[in-house]
Amino acid sequence: MKYARFRIAEEQPMKLGVVEGEWLYEVEGDLFSSHKKIIKENKYPLNSVKLEAPLMPRHIIGVGKNYVGPGEAKPSKYPDVPIFFFKPVSAVIGPGEDIVIPAALQEVKFEAELAVIMGKTASKIKETEAKDYIFGYTVANDVTAPQLFHPEGHWMVGKSQNTFSPLGPYIETDLDLSAVRVGALHNGIGKQNSGLDLMILPIEYMISYLSHSMTLEPGDVILSGSPAGAEFMKDGDEIECSVTGIGVLRNRVVQSKN
Amino acid sequence: MKYARFRIAEEQPMKLGVVEGEWLYEVEGDLFSSHKKIIKENKYPLNSVKLEAPLMPRHIIGVGKNYVGPGEAKPSKYPDVPIFFFKPVSAVIGPGEDIVIPAALQEVKFEAELAVIMGKTASKIKETEAKDYIFGYTVANDVTAPQLFHPEGHWMVGKSQNTFSPLGPYIETDLDLSAVRVGALHNGIGKQNSGLDLMILPIEYMISYLSHSMTLEPGDVILSGSPAGAEFMKDGDEIECSVTGIGVLRNRVVQSKN
Repeated sequence: MKYARFRIAEEQPMKLGVVEGEWLYEVEGDLFSSHKKIIKENKYPLNSVKLEAPLMPRHIIGVGKNYVGPGEAKPSKYPDVPIFFFKPVSAVIGPGEDIVIPAALQEVKFEAELAVIMGKTASKIKETEAKDYIFGYTVANDVTAPQLFHPEGHWMVGKSQNTFSPLGPYIETDLDLSAVRVGALHNGIGKQNSGLDLMILPIEYMISYLSHSMTLEPGDVILSGSPAGAEFMKDGDEIECSVTGIGVLRNRVVQSKN
Repeated sequence: MKYARFRIAEEQPMKLGVVEGEWLYEVEGDLFSSHKKIIKENKYPLNSVKLEAPLMPRHIIGVGKNYVGPGEAKPSKYPDVPIFFFKPVSAVIGPGEDIVIPAALQEVKFEAELAVIMGKTASKIKETEAKDYIFGYTVANDVTAPQLFHPEGHWMVGKSQNTFSPLGPYIETDLDLSAVRVGALHNGIGKQNSGLDLMILPIEYMISYLSHSMTLEPGDVILSGSPAGAEFMKDGDEIECSVTGIGVLRNRVVQSKN
C-alpha cells in the first residue's frame, strides 16, 4: 500500500490518502490505526493535489556513516556504540517545498536516504523480529550543514535547521529491500546510487539496537544512512532523492537572506 | 502559577492542575491554551495524588558544559556553535518514577538542571525578546551514561535511554531567576548547588540562538545545563534535583536485569 498526505488545494485541510496508479483515494482514520477506511468516492487525480510530507514523525533518528563505497570493504565488526543522532520534527518539509540555506552559509549537503517508519511499540526486540515492527518506508533527504558541526563531534546544529528534513512523497508498506536503490540527482546529474548491500549496520540491527535504548513507537522514523556521493547544493539547485519502489522526493534550494 | 499533571489514583486519567498551597485544583484545557479554566470544585489534597511529568515535551534540547565551577572564570566569548543535543520524549518520567540503569552498565550520572518551557512559536527572535516566549520552568534531571557516548563525540545513545529524562514536579510560570539555585542531593548529601550566575550561555542567548536554527514551538523544552558536582548513581540510590521556587524532583535508581 502506498500512502500520501495531501491537500486538494493550498489552505485546504490535510488529508490522508492511498495511491493507486494515477489516483489518490482519501483514507479515513489515522495512518497507524487498524481501522482505516478507504473512501472510494473521494478520489483525486494524483497530479492535481499538493503532496505533503507523508507523516509528521514522533522522533527522527539518523545514523552516521552507514554505507561503504562500491568495492570498499565493510568494517569487520559493528561498533560498540553506533553514531546515532536526532533531527527535530520542526525540520520536516514535504515534496516540492524549498530547502533553505541558512543566511550565514552559502551551501548545504544533500544526503538521500531510505527512511524506515515504525508501526508498533518496540522495546528490547531481537534483530530477527525487527521487520514485524516496521510500518513502511519513505524517502528522506538528510540535509546537513557540516559547517555547523561542533568541533567535538556534536552534529545537532548542523542537522537541525528548518527545512533540513524533507520526507516523501509516499510511504510504501510493501517494499522489496533487495531491489532497492537509494539515489540522488543533483541538478539532473546522478550523484548517489547504491543498493542496501553497501549498508554497514542493517536496518534490523539498528531497530533492535535502538529498541534496547529507547522504546520506539509508531511514527518514529529511522533515517538509515546515505550512500557515497553526497555533495553540496547552492541557491537555485534542484535535488531529487529517490528510492526504488517508493518514488522521487524533489526539492529546490534557496538562500535565506536573513 | 504552578502547574502539575496528576492522577487521582493509578490507572485514572491524567489531569492538569494548578497548585495553591496544599491543594491542587483541576484545570480544564490545554497547558498552552489561553482558554484554560480552573475548576474550583475539583480540588484534591496535593499529598493525595500521583504527580506525573508536568508536560510531554515536543522536543527536549540539552546544552552541554554550560556552567563554570565556583570561582572559575567563564570563557571570554561564546562558542560559534554551542554543544546542543536532543533527548527523546520516550525518556521522560515523572517525579517518583524509577531511573533505570541499563543492563550493560552499573552506574549512570545525575545532572540537575533548570528546564525552560517554550510557550510561543519562536523563529529568529532577539535575545532581548526571548523572555516573552517562555511559558515557565521546571526541574530536570539530565540522566547520562557517558559510557555510551560515541568516541567521536556523539552523545545520543548515552543521553537517550528510557527513564533518562525525569521532569517535574511542577511548572512554575513566575520564577525569579536571580534567586534560583540548581541543586542535587544524592542519597541525602548535597552534590550540586549553584546560582545561574555560573551559567556560560544565558537562557535568553540559547533561545535566540536556537530560534535562528529551528522554529521553537510551545512544548519545546530546553535543559539549560548542569552545575559542577554531577556524579554517578547506583542501584538503590535516591536522587533529588531541585530548583528554588519550583520544587524537588525525587527519583530512585534501579538496575535493569535484562
